[in-house]
Amino acid sequence: MPASLLVAGHDRIAGAARRVMARCDELARVSATSGAIERVYLSTEHARVNRLAAEWMREIGMTTRQDAAGNQLGRIGPPDAPALLLGSHLDTVPDAGRYDGIVGVLMALEVVRLLRPPGAEGSASDPALPFALEVIAFSDEEGTRFGKALLGSSAVAGTWDADWWALTDADGTTLGEAFREFGLDPGRIGEAARHPDELVGYLEAHIEQGPELDRRGESLAVVSSIASARRFQLVVEGEARHAGGTPYDLRRDALLGASEAALAVERICRAEHHIIGTVGQLEAYPGAVNIIPGEARLSLDLRGEFDGERDRVWGAISRDVDEIMGRRGLRWHAREIHSAPAVFCAPLLQDVVREGILSTLPSGADDPAVIFSRAGHDGMAIGAVTDVGMLFLRNPDGISHHPDEAVAAGDVARGIQALAEAVLHRAAEPV
Amino acid sequence: MPASLLVAGHDRIAGAARRVMARCDELARVSATSGAIERVYLSTEHARVNRLAAEWMREIGMTTRQDAAGNQLGRIGPPDAPALLLGSHLDTVPDAGRYDGIVGVLMALEVVRLLRPPGAEGSASDPALPFALEVIAFSDEEGTRFGKALLGSSAVAGTWDADWWALTDADGTTLGEAFREFGLDPGRIGEAARHPDELVGYLEAHIEQGPELDRRGESLAVVSSIASARRFQLVVEGEARHAGGTPYDLRRDALLGASEAALAVERICRAEHHIIGTVGQLEAYPGAVNIIPGEARLSLDLRGEFDGERDRVWGAISRDVDEIMGRRGLRWHAREIHSAPAVFCAPLLQDVVREGILSTLPSGADDPAVIFSRAGHDGMAIGAVTDVGMLFLRNPDGISHHPDEAVAAGDVARGIQALAEAVLHRAAEPV
Repeated sequence: MPASLLVAGHDRIAGAARRVMARCDELARVSATSGAIERVYLSTEHARVNRLAAEWMREIGMTTRQDAAGNQLGRIGPPDAPALLLGSHLDTVPDAGRYDGIVGVLMALEVVRLLRPPGAEGSASDPALPFALEVIAFSDEEGTRFGKALLGSSAVAGTWDADWWALTDADGTTLGEAFREFGLDPGRIGEAARHPDELVGYLEAHIEQGPELDRRGESLAVVSSIASARRFQLVVEGEARHAGGTPYDLRRDALLGASEAALAVERICRAEHHIIGTVGQLEAYPGAVNIIPGEARLSLDLRGEFDGERDRVWGAISRDVDEIMGRRGLRWHAREIHSAPAVFCAPLLQDVVREGILSTLPSGADDPAVIFSRAGHDGMAIGAVTDVGMLFLRNPDGISHHPDEAVAAGDVARGIQALAEAVLHRAAEPV
Repeated sequence: MPASLLVAGHDRIAGAARRVMARCDELARVSATSGAIERVYLSTEHARVNRLAAEWMREIGMTTRQDAAGNQLGRIGPPDAPALLLGSHLDTVPDAGRYDGIVGVLMALEVVRLLRPPGAEGSASDPALPFALEVIAFSDEEGTRFGKALLGSSAVAGTWDADWWALTDADGTTLGEAFREFGLDPGRIGEAARHPDELVGYLEAHIEQGPELDRRGESLAVVSSIASARRFQLVVEGEARHAGGTPYDLRRDALLGASEAALAVERICRAEHHIIGTVGQLEAYPGAVNIIPGEARLSLDLRGEFDGERDRVWGAISRDVDEIMGRRGLRWHAREIHSAPAVFCAPLLQDVVREGILSTLPSGADDPAVIFSRAGHDGMAIGAVTDVGMLFLRNPDGISHHPDEAVAAGDVARGIQALAEAVLHRAAEPV
């Protein structure tokens, strides 16, 4: 069992957790819609939460900057040393909860506060670490405004795609125009990119967005990987005919084929251990009450811990859909609209997160849970430029992307302690 | 076997059928869309086909008028005698075929031409019948423009509903405004209504809009009834959650419940003899690729020959859907949006149609097919004011409401002969 490296009493950590909870409430009031939480990329709400985050960064002695993609950063430590990045995102989905992303940014600030030398409160002195610490508040993880997720972290990873400038929001504003309206220069986007040599790694705390920890009765988990995901649009083609005059044996009803396909996705994925398939969209055409649907379109979102397993399941689904459509005299095809390989958390960072969590448990406790993230995270983009490690916090009933999203202050306290310990354990290893 | 009452040679009837086919082609060119057929209620195309029909009515000695609902009528015979109505409709669905409705109006004109005394061609002399003959071209059967079907025939039946004036088309024009733009006065709609005493009955020839006759290898059928129909909108409620983070046992996926319901409709109705159920619309909400659908809406169109059988099947579907939704932790409810009782063709008119069809068959032939119409027809409205009889023509492969809709000239010839014989047989019975 690893030793606790952190010199911080229970009261100090509990106070840090209370501050995180209060700031989550404060940020929840910065919203485009009253009575609900919505903060999208390059909005006035985005600018306001960046200003608040910068203020909180400076309060603990960090130097701050907003980068060329609107990410808010704070840094403390030797100017020329590589940095360990800590953080998450401050943007939200529509009608969001108040913790997804946000709690990870605020916990990172408390970790920096805890790791500063005793008595340094309010000064600009550095933590005694062999690397600098940077807290990053990513500007766009959810992709709510432009439909493309991970814009903020992609800019940092240097994987920004020039095609994205033409993406438009619901009002027809392009991403390029929104940059200029926000006061950013699209021509300087490259300046947000970090070089691998500048970075030691990226550590993020995030609510689980699932019920695993809640079911196990545990507070914290080591994240092993971020799910691999593929998304498809399936088109089923039959024949639109008169609903009254066409007997069943002459029908080629595209909607019934699509319905069977949606149920096949559920059946096949349920039988697998770690694969989740979801049909979130389904529409029938022409969509008249008295016409047999001649066409149906459905989406498929397929996630798994391993790319190979996910691809094998897609093969099984395809064979089943072939059988369904053949039996019903329908044609079908699928277009892949998104594909992201699984991103594995670096073994060293998994180790230090495990050690951090163990420091919060009684001596002799079992190893903490190791789970993979079925949801996407900034680490998926950042993984292209540095090592990624993640810590999950218990998320009651697994409710996320919803106003009822919750996290307990006690779990936040344990998470802050674990993350601070993880940073210290990382500091004990070669940079 | 009844005697043939009609004095008309084969050549004359074949000529009549050729004229019907040529006029179907001519009317097909009167369309709001080039390269397709679309004629909706109170449009300039409606006015044009009414003028053509009136011209053709006058050509065979009929006096013509357009009634207060835009129906085109022609009359021949004693001014004070009750009339036997013959006809169908001239409006179409979008991207329609050229025969649905239209062929019945044009066949009625040929029946009038055949029944006029020999040598009367071009004069206004009357058929020697104990009733007048009227040909009616209904102005709106399909309901394409205002979503409400049978507007023309409802006006004639005296069942026009004042609420309909507020119905709007896709451009927001109300039915009342469209009346005035067409040159009709909404305040005079009551003048289109006929009194039962003025009418002997209503006889209509129509393509089958189904494959029964084509499969039997027969040309013509007696229609026993027009299907009873009920339409519902079903709403399924579950819980919208994150597609990645929510394992299957925590999901309440409304779309999967709706998919099972659509398949249950098919399974239950297939097991019945004379019930057809169709789900033509299905949508999932919020309809995002990465969110489990929290709500789904689907339509159900349920048709059967008998109201009681149809209602029993709706009961069976409801019980099945209860079980599906209960098992999946979903709620559901249904709203009935349309209900029409079955309309039975009058026994006397079924008899005379049967005798008419027999006159076209070799001596000793079996009785013709008797089938019920799963599609709606003007007779559903007209049944409120007079007896209804219908004759179906073979419809190759049952394709209707589609540019490939077809009917053979030979079948049209046999249909004209059968319909003329039916009128003469009706004339032999008390008025």
